[in-house]
Amino acid sequence: MTRCTKLPLSSCLLYRTAMAEAATQATVGNSEFDRDTAITRREDGVYDVELSAGWTIIHAVNGGYLLALMGRALGDALPHPDPFSVSAHYLTASQPGPAVIRTQTVRTGRTLSTGQASLFQYEEDGTEVERIRVLATYGDLDSLPDDVRTSAEPPAIPPLEHCLGPADGQPSIPGSSAITERLDIKLDPATVGWAIGAPSGKGEMRGWFGLADGRDADPLSLLLTVDALPPTSFELGLSGWTPTVELTTHIRCRPAPGPLRVSITTRNLAGGFLEEDADVWDSADRLVAQSRQLAKAPRGQ
Amino acid sequence: MTRCTKLPLSSCLLYRTAMAEAATQATVGNSEFDRDTAITRREDGVYDVELSAGWTIIHAVNGGYLLALMGRALGDALPHPDPFSVSAHYLTASQPGPAVIRTQTVRTGRTLSTGQASLFQYEEDGTEVERIRVLATYGDLDSLPDDVRTSAEPPAIPPLEHCLGPADGQPSIPGSSAITERLDIKLDPATVGWAIGAPSGKGEMRGWFGLADGRDADPLSLLLTVDALPPTSFELGLSGWTPTVELTTHIRCRPAPGPLRVSITTRNLAGGFLEEDADVWDSADRLVAQSRQLAKAPRGQ
Repeated sequence: MTRCTKLPLSSCLLYRTAMAEAATQATVGNSEFDRDTAITRREDGVYDVELSAGWTIIHAVNGGYLLALMGRALGDALPHPDPFSVSAHYLTASQPGPAVIRTQTVRTGRTLSTGQASLFQYEEDGTEVERIRVLATYGDLDSLPDDVRTSAEPPAIPPLEHCLGPADGQPSIPGSSAITERLDIKLDPATVGWAIGAPSGKGEMRGWFGLADGRDADPLSLLLTVDALPPTSFELGLSGWTPTVELTTHIRCRPAPGPLRVSITTRNLAGGFLEEDADVWDSADRLVAQSRQLAKAPRGQ
Repeated sequence: MTRCTKLPLSSCLLYRTAMAEAATQATVGNSEFDRDTAITRREDGVYDVELSAGWTIIHAVNGGYLLALMGRALGDALPHPDPFSVSAHYLTASQPGPAVIRTQTVRTGRTLSTGQASLFQYEEDGTEVERIRVLATYGDLDSLPDDVRTSAEPPAIPPLEHCLGPADGQPSIPGSSAITERLDIKLDPATVGWAIGAPSGKGEMRGWFGLADGRDADPLSLLLTVDALPPTSFELGLSGWTPTVELTTHIRCRPAPGPLRVSITTRNLAGGFLEEDADVWDSADRLVAQSRQLAKAPRGQ
């Protein structure tokens, strides 16, 4: 059952009502996300996959979705199940269609193991072209002690019913795209100025995050979540493409069921590059994922 | 010449005086750091190196020093000179002595290239044991436009003369070690409570950073700088070893000559792990490096 242990009551009720209205709520293992991140083992450590057109922004496949696919392959190849730290360097833009993920086990330890993965697509003549290379350290989140000694606080995001999604008249991301139908994102009104031509000038983007078919979060879907909100560059007054150069995600805790809150900040846009730091909080007020990416800043004003 | 464009006058004078007192100030290319990160090309992309005992903490070689060594090898192997984003997964603890760095060019682009490097040491029977694996994207810092649109502010650190180094009665890191003689670190008094048994309880560590022989910073030495201060866990009241699992560093700007300011924060110590975010600022008030690492928390109280 979906439970919201620490959220404002109104947000919990709204989330539960939306879930109840869905004819059949998707579950972990039986959802769009799971079907579109399915892997087929060709041989030990090598997996055939199909990049779904359902997770594209404009014509490119979302980087977080690709990361989740590679995370699933590594979780199969390594002796530990959960991604603890995943570092991805993006090489070339992926297109919907067939791909292959080749993994390598780098080190196997008692509590942690480290692996590497590359995602390739095919030229017309069959030549493989590498899209992304990943280094990742895996462990078992369920084996961790429950201690929390932290100064981090959940982001101040208004209750779900005061946040804005595409159905609330908030324009979707310019030019996009299939992925918006797969995600249930409601942005903090304080960070949607870009949608009406009045960006805040602050490098901030915040909102509620869920999968549209109601599937709850797990460590794999968190790899999608960290790269799913509109870029902070929109609120900095820059429109256009913000391609990721590098993205590292730390999964710190198995997320509780219920909606997630995501806060993204950029403190340094300089020399044509910017960083985006994402924090993801679950309904139990645990900081479940932290990520940082380096991206190329859009050229437009 | 060493210039301090935006620092308080007192800090600049103190730094210049210290430099002038050094019989011969080391320079980029002629310093302890450069000698100890020298690489010898064995064949294309393969480099023999010697891990110096001068950069050890207790008996382990400092992770930032190792990163600088691997960064130098990648800078030689790749067509672009400067590290933009370096992701390192630490596998086994390194010891002083011979090692080999094997690099692979993953992708070569017009403005960015991506490479991979592994550092190996040798068992008694000559078997290679991998210590660290790195993915890195390189570019040319001098080719970047000079625009800065940022909300980041330099950390509030007292002037150099009010900060504390080993000569000011501040105990060195427990059990350490050679590296303290190679570094000129003066910590903010607000973050040295750990040294007198009164940690602040905050996940913060701040201070001035220089190399002891006066060599100015460059992109390679910044890879050392991000992992050179005492761990924030000391100020959280935990003593003992804080081994790095993963460390990603973004070099955002070529540092100006003069002392650096380093600010490290931990917001989430949970489940036996913690993150450390480091910001490095140069004397021109530019944010020159940002890093985040995931580390295992010490077991001790």
